[in-house]
Amino acid sequence: MPKLEPYYRDLPYSYATGLFPATACIKACPERCQRLLLSSKLRMTEDVRTLIGACEAAGVRTEQADHVLERISRKENCFAAMVYEKAEGVFDDRLPQIILYNPSDTGNMGTILRTALGMDFRNIAIIRPAVDSDDPRTVRASMGAMFSLNVRHFDTFSRYLDEYDQVPMYPFMLDGSVPLAEACRTVGKEPFALVFGNEATGLPANFVHMGTSVRIPHNDEIDSLNLAVAAGIGIYAFAQTFKAEH
Amino acid sequence: MPKLEPYYRDLPYSYATGLFPATACIKACPERCQRLLLSSKLRMTEDVRTLIGACEAAGVRTEQADHVLERISRKENCFAAMVYEKAEGVFDDRLPQIILYNPSDTGNMGTILRTALGMDFRNIAIIRPAVDSDDPRTVRASMGAMFSLNVRHFDTFSRYLDEYDQVPMYPFMLDGSVPLAEACRTVGKEPFALVFGNEATGLPANFVHMGTSVRIPHNDEIDSLNLAVAAGIGIYAFAQTFKAEH
Repeated sequence: MPKLEPYYRDLPYSYATGLFPATACIKACPERCQRLLLSSKLRMTEDVRTLIGACEAAGVRTEQADHVLERISRKENCFAAMVYEKAEGVFDDRLPQIILYNPSDTGNMGTILRTALGMDFRNIAIIRPAVDSDDPRTVRASMGAMFSLNVRHFDTFSRYLDEYDQVPMYPFMLDGSVPLAEACRTVGKEPFALVFGNEATGLPANFVHMGTSVRIPHNDEIDSLNLAVAAGIGIYAFAQTFKAEH
Repeated sequence: MPKLEPYYRDLPYSYATGLFPATACIKACPERCQRLLLSSKLRMTEDVRTLIGACEAAGVRTEQADHVLERISRKENCFAAMVYEKAEGVFDDRLPQIILYNPSDTGNMGTILRTALGMDFRNIAIIRPAVDSDDPRTVRASMGAMFSLNVRHFDTFSRYLDEYDQVPMYPFMLDGSVPLAEACRTVGKEPFALVFGNEATGLPANFVHMGTSVRIPHNDEIDSLNLAVAAGIGIYAFAQTFKAEH
């Protein structure tokens, strides 16, 4: 294997930094794990033993690599990192989807992935241009949730529609036509897709006519909710009714 | 006025950096605004004109201050900052409260304040130790929401109870006794308090017996939701039923 580089988008591998994300990676995707890097400063706790044990069981090499960790983590303290191979996911068509349309912030994307996993929204469609879902900051904010999700990328929204034009869509918009509580009630047994736009610009205006556009009621003292919060509220509300149907 | 310093916690003033937060500050709290700092690189847009006009109307001095902006903003690009005086809020006892118990992340705190304002939760109790609600990073993450909120600080939770032991409490906990949807239904016309714990450690175990402890249902593939997301879901759900009662 060539020398590990500081992360950039075109690398075929990335880093799950931190104990929890690295452990999530080896547990969910052992076949994608290449090696585990540990700092000599890492204290040998129960959690560390679990991680190392999981790597041994999967035949993934563990090595002390202080210099590499420093190089890849840029200033931040980083005591453990899993080197993993990037891979495109495959959707489970029995489950609902989340569509992230041009998301631009790694923290928001990671946080949304974490919520999505917790609420059983396992299919994630990312419409480009978009922030990198394998950026170590995304992975960290997700706490490694992406390793248990089916994350797919589409170059344009049309490409997404080529495959999924039959899935009922719920675009979240400031001027959505139906309040969230009411929109949830229209969900049946079939999978559907919640659509969230860019942090600064939201969704293009024409989404208001695609499926059932949804608004989360709030007063006009704020411009909008934070994207990860809006997605969290939407995912929670739809998960409640979708579960009730199943 | 003495020379402006890079921000630290004991300063009697702080900085609302960025156009939107600075504008929120002058609109909600003109009496606390001391001066507006602008970069020579700032383009004169409609939003900038609105901000400068609001400062003129309030008698707040505007000055070009590239060096100060560089000094106070540490590397980040910052084209506008309002220097404002810190102040402790006063609760409006007709409205519900949010209690943040030992929050440790400026981004989460700011994001929660933004959600709280949008959903009319105007009373915010911060139980120390806690991250600084006037840290410029908190202000920025809140988009200036705190200037329209009543933010109070308490050195201990007992101090809070000295004043508010009659307010029905809803502590959010991983092992809360009532699921969120059910907990919301117990809300009446009277104000109540939603309680959220620390990012890493949550609330102390004894909170489970204080009022009605609430859990947000999620599967066990995640450890917990992100704090700002959990608070967002809780605030939304309670806002829906509280509004219906009024």
